[in-house]
Amino acid sequence: MNLSLRKARTIIRKAFEKGAEMELKPLSAVVLDAGGHVIAFERQDGAAPGRFAIAHGKAYGAVMLGMAGTAQMARAEQQPYFMAAVNGVYGGQTIPVPGGVLLRSTKGAVIGAVGLTGDTSDNDAVAALAGIEAANLIGEI
Amino acid sequence: MNLSLRKARTIIRKAFEKGAEMELKPLSAVVLDAGGHVIAFERQDGAAPGRFAIAHGKAYGAVMLGMAGTAQMARAEQQPYFMAAVNGVYGGQTIPVPGGVLLRSTKGAVIGAVGLTGDTSDNDAVAALAGIEAANLIGEI
Amino acid sequence: MNLSLRKARTIIRKAFEKGAEMELKPLSAVVLDAGGHVIAFERQDGAAPGRFAIAHGKAYGAVMLGMAGTAQMARAEQQPYFMAAVNGVYGGQTIPVPGGVLLRSTKGAVIGAVGLTGDTSDNDAVAALAGIEAANLIGEI
Amino acid sequence: MNLSLRKARTIIRKAFEKGAEMELKPLSAVVLDAGGHVIAFERQDGAAPGRFAIAHGKAYGAVMLGMAGTAQMARAEQQPYFMAAVNGVYGGQTIPVPGGVLLRSTKGAVIGAVGLTGDTSDNDAVAALAGIEAANLIGEI
Repeated sequence: MNLSLRKARTIIRKAFEKGAEMELKPLSAVVLDAGGHVIAFERQDGAAPGRFAIAHGKAYGAVMLGMAGTAQMARAEQQPYFMAAVNGVYGGQTIPVPGGVLLRSTKGAVIGAVGLTGDTSDNDAVAALAGIEAANLIGEI
Repeated sequence: MNLSLRKARTIIRKAFEKGAEMELKPLSAVVLDAGGHVIAFERQDGAAPGRFAIAHGKAYGAVMLGMAGTAQMARAEQQPYFMAAVNGVYGGQTIPVPGGVLLRSTKGAVIGAVGLTGDTSDNDAVAALAGIEAANLIGEI
Repeated sequence: MNLSLRKARTIIRKAFEKGAEMELKPLSAVVLDAGGHVIAFERQDGAAPGRFAIAHGKAYGAVMLGMAGTAQMARAEQQPYFMAAVNGVYGGQTIPVPGGVLLRSTKGAVIGAVGLTGDTSDNDAVAALAGIEAANLIGEI
Repeated sequence: MNLSLRKARTIIRKAFEKGAEMELKPLSAVVLDAGGHVIAFERQDGAAPGRFAIAHGKAYGAVMLGMAGTAQMARAEQQPYFMAAVNGVYGGQTIPVPGGVLLRSTKGAVIGAVGLTGDTSDNDAVAALAGIEAANLIGEI
């Protein structure tokens, strides 16, 4: 199952709506395909300029490792040197905290990931998941 | 003048409409702010996975040098070693061909850039410019 | 359609058999998936130590651009600064010559790429294509 | 003593058989020569796309430092900043945990390394060692 641009747009738009509803800070969201390549990204007005790299890092690490942000953070707490090394082998492109959400097909295969950033990591994950569910997809935070 | 996400969305959407009208291959488009940072990106279904880097490179070089794609290409034809070195100093993130379009305010200040890729460089620039004009902005190809 | 490890093994093994039949120098071959990620690689005894990067670069550029080695070489002949810049945006990981062969599904979608290196670029492409056809896949050299 | 492609294939195949016997998750395995260069790699169907970098990092650090994964992890627990710096000097290409297994000749010389990833680090090391022993080589986990 390939993730379409239409689905990606829905995820981002609905995640931003959730953020507005929760009164979160300005958000940025990226949607990656199953190979870790960008399908779509948006940064809300007022967000810091470097948000693409954070959103991308959350989603990229999730796809490349097949491990969502929450599991990555647990591993980083337990073995910080391991996640630091993972960051190195992936060219510095990973951020191991919530807000990196795996997208799974109904059969369980990873079909991509969403990276959301701007508020607390936990709120980021909630907004991402709302967007994913609005697109009728399965998210693993 | 800051470029809003709303403007960026309009640019991308209208550039894609122009591409459809011209029957171009699947397109990818990025909009960067005046600091060279990503505001929005979309890759159409069927485009190759690596299109973000190409779109980004076209726009990033334009902002960083204050020189649109056409001028960069002219310089590359004349002094290839110069544009190769520019690619190096900007961390490999520049693509000196049309499709990298500067966004200017009515007073002439650079307020960002659009990077468009997918078809020939010249067609890419035409589609990007159509998007920019639909957003009531001034583009320099 | 996902490329299986079994298919990847067949491609490499049959490409090496073709190389032996043609009395080519020791070969190295990589098979990447549709996201440009390594499924399998083998370097024959006697090949130079750096062959992984060459094989990988041929295949990686093909997947990321959706353009096989022959087309990349033509573009490099015409616009050397463009392919040099492409190398930069992809982190130095592309080699624009024959031997980078796109794998396509019967519907035409890119499902991966093979990178073969060790002999002349043209012989590399012939051996790669033999492996691909032995695996009942469609190659674009 | 040089490590042949035939030996490398045996190591990978037998490590995967051990993984199947132990009911491990999908595995990925790389075999590097004494110079840290890739001889062979395979990623089983269902493994995450980024597994090459993890397998490679485990094996590459082992060869470059002459220190297997278990010893590297002990050092990382004691001096995380040291292993972080090692990751940096080797271009981000090291992963200091079990599953990076040194290959030694009967005289004790390092002739290469195996990097295995996919399950827990300890299970990864067990599977790697099984492959190494099936190839009549000496492994140091």
